[in-house]
Amino acid sequence: MIETPYLLFLGDAPDPLAAKVAQGIRDWRPDNCVGQLRLPGCNADMGLTDMTLDEARAAGARTVVIGVANRGGVISQSWKRVLVEALEQGFDLASGLHNLLRDEADLRAAAAAHGRTLHDVRVPSVAYPIANGIKRAGKRCLAVGTDCSVGKMYTALCMDREMRERGMKATFRATGQTGILITGNGVPLDAVIADFMAGSVEWLTPDNDPDHWDLIEGQGSLFHVSFSGVTLALIHGGQPDALILSHEPTRTHMRGLPGYALPSLEALRDTALPLARVANPECQVVGCSINTKSMPEAEARAYLAEVEQRMGLPATDPFRFGAGKLVDALASL
Amino acid sequence: MIETPYLLFLGDAPDPLAAKVAQGIRDWRPDNCVGQLRLPGCNADMGLTDMTLDEARAAGARTVVIGVANRGGVISQSWKRVLVEALEQGFDLASGLHNLLRDEADLRAAAAAHGRTLHDVRVPSVAYPIANGIKRAGKRCLAVGTDCSVGKMYTALCMDREMRERGMKATFRATGQTGILITGNGVPLDAVIADFMAGSVEWLTPDNDPDHWDLIEGQGSLFHVSFSGVTLALIHGGQPDALILSHEPTRTHMRGLPGYALPSLEALRDTALPLARVANPECQVVGCSINTKSMPEAEARAYLAEVEQRMGLPATDPFRFGAGKLVDALASL
Repeated sequence: MIETPYLLFLGDAPDPLAAKVAQGIRDWRPDNCVGQLRLPGCNADMGLTDMTLDEARAAGARTVVIGVANRGGVISQSWKRVLVEALEQGFDLASGLHNLLRDEADLRAAAAAHGRTLHDVRVPSVAYPIANGIKRAGKRCLAVGTDCSVGKMYTALCMDREMRERGMKATFRATGQTGILITGNGVPLDAVIADFMAGSVEWLTPDNDPDHWDLIEGQGSLFHVSFSGVTLALIHGGQPDALILSHEPTRTHMRGLPGYALPSLEALRDTALPLARVANPECQVVGCSINTKSMPEAEARAYLAEVEQRMGLPATDPFRFGAGKLVDALASL
Repeated sequence: MIETPYLLFLGDAPDPLAAKVAQGIRDWRPDNCVGQLRLPGCNADMGLTDMTLDEARAAGARTVVIGVANRGGVISQSWKRVLVEALEQGFDLASGLHNLLRDEADLRAAAAAHGRTLHDVRVPSVAYPIANGIKRAGKRCLAVGTDCSVGKMYTALCMDREMRERGMKATFRATGQTGILITGNGVPLDAVIADFMAGSVEWLTPDNDPDHWDLIEGQGSLFHVSFSGVTLALIHGGQPDALILSHEPTRTHMRGLPGYALPSLEALRDTALPLARVANPECQVVGCSINTKSMPEAEARAYLAEVEQRMGLPATDPFRFGAGKLVDALASL
C-alpha cells in the first residue's frame, strides 16, 4: 500500500503525454494529489499547485510519485537531486518506471538511511498463492477487450466513479502500473510469475459484502497472442459475475500484430463468456464499452446505437457519455 | 543446454516414486544415461550400472543429474559430499528441485572454483522476448487436456519416439522441469513472467524444415482455473497445426479443485480449437490421447472405441497401446 496523499513529480516532461501517469492520478484520484513538482523545462501541467518539497510536506503529502516517463531509460541527475532530498525529508517514493528505484544505489542508500520505502510498482511485492477457485462472497465485474489498450482501465474507473456517486459499494482493483499508482495498491499482473497469475487476482479481489462490486482492471485480450494468457488468468482468478465487452472501432489490426485482425464483439462474447463460466457459472455479459475518441460525436452516437441493436446490450463510451448504462446493468443483476 | 550424457544421482531415494525424474530420463532418453549413483538406503533402481564418479567420468558422463526428490526441502550433507566431489571432478550438476543448487554456498563455491555449471531447471535462464505472432515454418503439435496431469507430456514423448522410429523429423519440446531434464533443454513455463510466456514458447519452437514437427509438452488446462493462463499462452505461442485432446476418464474432479468437474472431450475441442485458430487458422484437432492406467485392458479398449466413434477421431493410450494412430493422423495432415 502506497501512502497517500501524493506530491506528483512531473520532472522535465517534454510534453503532456510523457506525464500520462500523473494525468491518470489527477483525473481519477484528485483527492490524493496535494500538488505538483516541476523542474526547469517541464512542459506538462496538471493544474495543481506547484510546490517545493517543504511546501508539499506542510500540506500533508506522504509520497512523491514519479508521474512522468523518463528519457532513455535512465533516472537523470536532475531528478536524483530532488528524489534524494525527498527521501531525506521523510517522503516515500513510488514509480512505475522500467528502470527501478531500487536499482539506484544513491536512492537505496537514502531510503535506508531515513527509513523510507521505495515503491517500484512494476515488481510484485507479495508472494501470491496458487489460485484455489473457491467461490468468494461479493460481486466482480471485468472488462474484456477485442484488443489491448482499447479502454478497459478507463471503463472500470468510470464505472467505479459512477457507482460511488450513486452510493453503491464499489472498489476499483488495479492490475497494471498506472492503475496501481492511481489507487495506491494492486497487482502488477504482467510481471507475476505464470503459476501465480490467477492466484494474484484471487488475492486482489477477496471476499466482500454481498452487494459490493470489485471493478477489476482488464489486461490484454483473449485474441492477442502475446498476452492472452494474462487475460485468461484474470478471467479465471477474478471469477467475474459481469463481463463488459470493450472495443475501439477504428483499430485496423491487433496492437503490435500487423497480421492479426480484430475479432467482432460477437466473437469476443462467444469466447469470453464460456471461459468465464468455468469459474463462475452465473457470469453474464452485461454491456459494451466503446472507445469512440477517434469519431465525431454524431458518428459515435450512431455507432453506439448500432451496437446496442446488434448485440442486444447497453452500449456507451463511458469516458465520453458517462457510465450510467453500464452501472444500471450491474445494478439490475 | 545441459551437457550429456548423464550420471543419474538417485541419492537415498526412499522408494521408486521419489526417483521419478530419473525414471523419466531412463525411459525416454536411455542413450543419455551412462549409469546411476546410489547412496546407502536407496530403494530406487533404474536398472543401470552402479558407478562411482570416477567410473562415470571414464564412461564419458558430463553432468550429474539429481533424479530424486529430496526430503524436507533441504539438500542433505550426505548428498553434498557427492555433489561437491562431482564438481571437483569436472561434472556439471542439473536439478529440478525446489530448493536451488545455486542457493547452496558450498555448491556455488565449488562450481566457481572448478569452472562448472549449476543447472537449476526450475528457473528460466533466458530473457525471453514478447511474442510477435509471426507464422513460423515447420509444423507443431500440442496436447491440450481436460485437466492437469492427464498425460500430455507422455503423449508428446510417445509420439516423438514413434516419429523418430518412422524416420520422420520430430523434436520433443520440453516446457516443464522433468521434460527439461529428460531432453537437456526447454522452457520452465510455469516460472516465466506473465508478459513473456507466449514469447518463450515461440523461442522454444522456432522456424524449422517444412516437414519437421515440434511435439510441444502441454501444461495445465484451459478448464483449470489455477493454470489456464499458462495453457493459453502455450496455445498462442506454439501456434499449433495439430491439437491432441488428452483425458483421464476416472478423474472425479479437476486436480486440486474439488468443486470443479472435468469438461467433456467435446467441450475441450470446442474451446481449444477456436482459440488455437486465432494464432494458426489451419489448426486441426487430430486425435485423442486417453490415459487408461486405472482401467483393465478390456475396459480401456472399449473406452477408446467409444471415444473414436463419438468424437470421429483416432483415440489411443499412447503409452499403453502405442502412438501409431496419432502419428498416422499427423502424417496425413
